[in-house]
Amino acid sequence: MKKKQDIPFTFGVNIPDATLDKYDNHIIRTLSSMQGQYFDTESYEAMLLEDDQVLYEVFEIKRPEIAGELLTGLSVVHPGKVGDEFFMTKGHFHTVLETAEVYYCLQGEGYMVMETPEGDWAVEELRPGRVLYVPPRWAHRSVNSSADEDLVTFFVYPGHAGHDYGTIEEQGFRNLVVEKNGRSKIIDNPRWRHQEERK
Amino acid sequence: MKKKQDIPFTFGVNIPDATLDKYDNHIIRTLSSMQGQYFDTESYEAMLLEDDQVLYEVFEIKRPEIAGELLTGLSVVHPGKVGDEFFMTKGHFHTVLETAEVYYCLQGEGYMVMETPEGDWAVEELRPGRVLYVPPRWAHRSVNSSADEDLVTFFVYPGHAGHDYGTIEEQGFRNLVVEKNGRSKIIDNPRWRHQEERK
Repeated sequence: MKKKQDIPFTFGVNIPDATLDKYDNHIIRTLSSMQGQYFDTESYEAMLLEDDQVLYEVFEIKRPEIAGELLTGLSVVHPGKVGDEFFMTKGHFHTVLETAEVYYCLQGEGYMVMETPEGDWAVEELRPGRVLYVPPRWAHRSVNSSADEDLVTFFVYPGHAGHDYGTIEEQGFRNLVVEKNGRSKIIDNPRWRHQEERK
Repeated sequence: MKKKQDIPFTFGVNIPDATLDKYDNHIIRTLSSMQGQYFDTESYEAMLLEDDQVLYEVFEIKRPEIAGELLTGLSVVHPGKVGDEFFMTKGHFHTVLETAEVYYCLQGEGYMVMETPEGDWAVEELRPGRVLYVPPRWAHRSVNSSADEDLVTFFVYPGHAGHDYGTIEEQGFRNLVVEKNGRSKIIDNPRWRHQEERK
């Protein structure tokens, strides 16, 4: 007998409202889930005392988490800053390192901050109508550098990829994206430590 | 040493011009490559005598064809008909049957005609802002049902999927999409034969 998941299906992307018209999971990440990720810990703590505001949201389509399947969804990073550092996602490696990811930018402006376990790094601009290819092995974090607009991207990655958030939580990313004199700037993360033991 | 392919990269989607601003392969399929695929063979032969016109184009981004990688590109099906049957792609199964595909429709209107080796079938509408999930095992062909506009879709599928065109070339799809009284209509393909020996 045919299982429900095996039937083709469609869903709509509502760009102005930054949502999908159908999804299985809605992940909401607030400031408190980003403990230790922002450089300016003083601003972080002060903001958290006022309001545990929503930094970003992810709408996911559920599929079997196996090779051959594709996991898709919409990522929405809201505008804002912690100190000088723009709102961003936690960022992660894939558990199965040898898996890629594709981002189609639909709205807003920002950056994808990326790095490999070997310490190579790259930062690519995200803007509407541009597709970003994140090759296997690259951890990735999206950053919204707009003053007032959501950064909206549609993503696709292999079903068996998995998420490793822990490595980034420990070592951070090598690059930070901050506002400097009204412009976005990519700077080194003084706290970044390369985990030499990671292969 | 790091290979060139292992560095993140971006490319732009130009929807009005139906092209990518960077690509590795540009596939152009003309009428003559669709021998035996259209039901009205008389109209097909008559059209071919006049002009071997372009039916559809595919812009591909090259990546290693292995699991974990993603193959992406833009599919552009031009408007037109052979007899009553709308312009369409050859359509194919993936060689590795257990691989999915995702289509993001960017412009135009049409259908994805799909079927499994077991003879199950499905037809889904394609229109701008809608994403189609083609689960593993489903052969798929896109059909442009507009009178004057290109059908433009952005696709992503697993690197190891491969293409099996032969099965569809032999048996055709179970459904045809034709124009009937100024409207698009999905009808049975009288020539369709289920390959019982296929698993």
